[in-house]
Amino acid sequence: MAQVKLLGFWYSPFSHRVEWALKIKGVEYEYTEEDRNNKSSLLLESNPVHKKVPVLIHNGKPICESLVILEYIDETFEGPSILPKDPYDRALARFWAKFLDDKVTAVVKTFLRKGEEQEKAKEEVCEMLKVLDNEFKDNKKLFVADNFGLADMAANLVGLWLGVFQEASGVVLVTSEKFSNFCAWRDEYINCTQVKKYLPPRRDELLAFYQARVQAIASK
Amino acid sequence: MAQVKLLGFWYSPFSHRVEWALKIKGVEYEYTEEDRNNKSSLLLESNPVHKKVPVLIHNGKPICESLVILEYIDETFEGPSILPKDPYDRALARFWAKFLDDKVTAVVKTFLRKGEEQEKAKEEVCEMLKVLDNEFKDNKKLFVADNFGLADMAANLVGLWLGVFQEASGVVLVTSEKFSNFCAWRDEYINCTQVKKYLPPRRDELLAFYQARVQAIASK
Repeated sequence: MAQVKLLGFWYSPFSHRVEWALKIKGVEYEYTEEDRNNKSSLLLESNPVHKKVPVLIHNGKPICESLVILEYIDETFEGPSILPKDPYDRALARFWAKFLDDKVTAVVKTFLRKGEEQEKAKEEVCEMLKVLDNEFKDNKKLFVADNFGLADMAANLVGLWLGVFQEASGVVLVTSEKFSNFCAWRDEYINCTQVKKYLPPRRDELLAFYQARVQAIASK
Repeated sequence: MAQVKLLGFWYSPFSHRVEWALKIKGVEYEYTEEDRNNKSSLLLESNPVHKKVPVLIHNGKPICESLVILEYIDETFEGPSILPKDPYDRALARFWAKFLDDKVTAVVKTFLRKGEEQEKAKEEVCEMLKVLDNEFKDNKKLFVADNFGLADMAANLVGLWLGVFQEASGVVLVTSEKFSNFCAWRDEYINCTQVKKYLPPRRDELLAFYQARVQAIASK
């Protein structure tokens, strides 16, 4: 068994964060693509609480939850830092990473649910976008100081996936009229070296995958 | 201005976690009780995103979110460690702390909402209790290794407050028949040195406060 294994979904922003961190650190790893309809016994045993990807297995020990894994990778492997050195900057990075992760359910519901549940989720996502739009005023490009790190990696959900979700579902919440700072940040985010170097799956493939999911749920 | 200030609610498990950590570390601090109906401008300016307690202000810089504050305190001040030293144990502590915090909304809804929203929340809380009951089998008393730390402090919500919420609302989810391991853990938790030494507010005062809240919401 490889020293470092990753169980993931190719289309998941959370799996992608972990791959990103491993690549930044230059850690060799063995990736296993899980099947969401038929999860492996290794996944179920490794994450018995949530039964979800990503799971990092290092020396046979499983670590779950993408942000927890990112902290673990930063503390365990040599290479460029994912968290800042200064404790206050670290706190800011953790604050923003948590802020983004706390909105995941709302983001997903916005695109996959209907009715009142969807409307509530839309409100929550718009509140999140307002906060981010304010955060990115004055041409701010990174969450903390000058180094791309934990919070910027956690932002892949809103920087990359949110646009795909919108296109796949037709539910458009982000417009440059309403959230101009956010959109300016996003344009630069998608094109910055750190994102380009560790590119997520091809956008057209992601889009096709999420379009199929939206259609499958709509036809239920 | 004191070097370390804490803005909190005396009845909040999240404020209590931060006080707890400061006391463990032996940090002197100035505590300010906030009014939830009339939050101070210092609170609103210090936590513009959530406008919530607790906020720790250290050398004039605000830190928000109780678990983020706990990590900051651990990294900033001398004294007994709040997180374990070993990266894998740290990951476990963070995993459980996140697990507990992810259930906060459900716990609160269980006691303060009605109808379908309450029923869904009850289901989620029972799922959480099942996980914890399994975790505490074989007489396990702490989340990670032998040291009381981050996850055990995050567990004040279920170890102390949940029982008060139940009594205040009459909504009883925890019974020793259904969750015997959890109850055994809780009995020991409430009486262990680390909890007793840094006692939360008096239980009867907490209970009176939450009873009044439940009644105020019911009469709306």
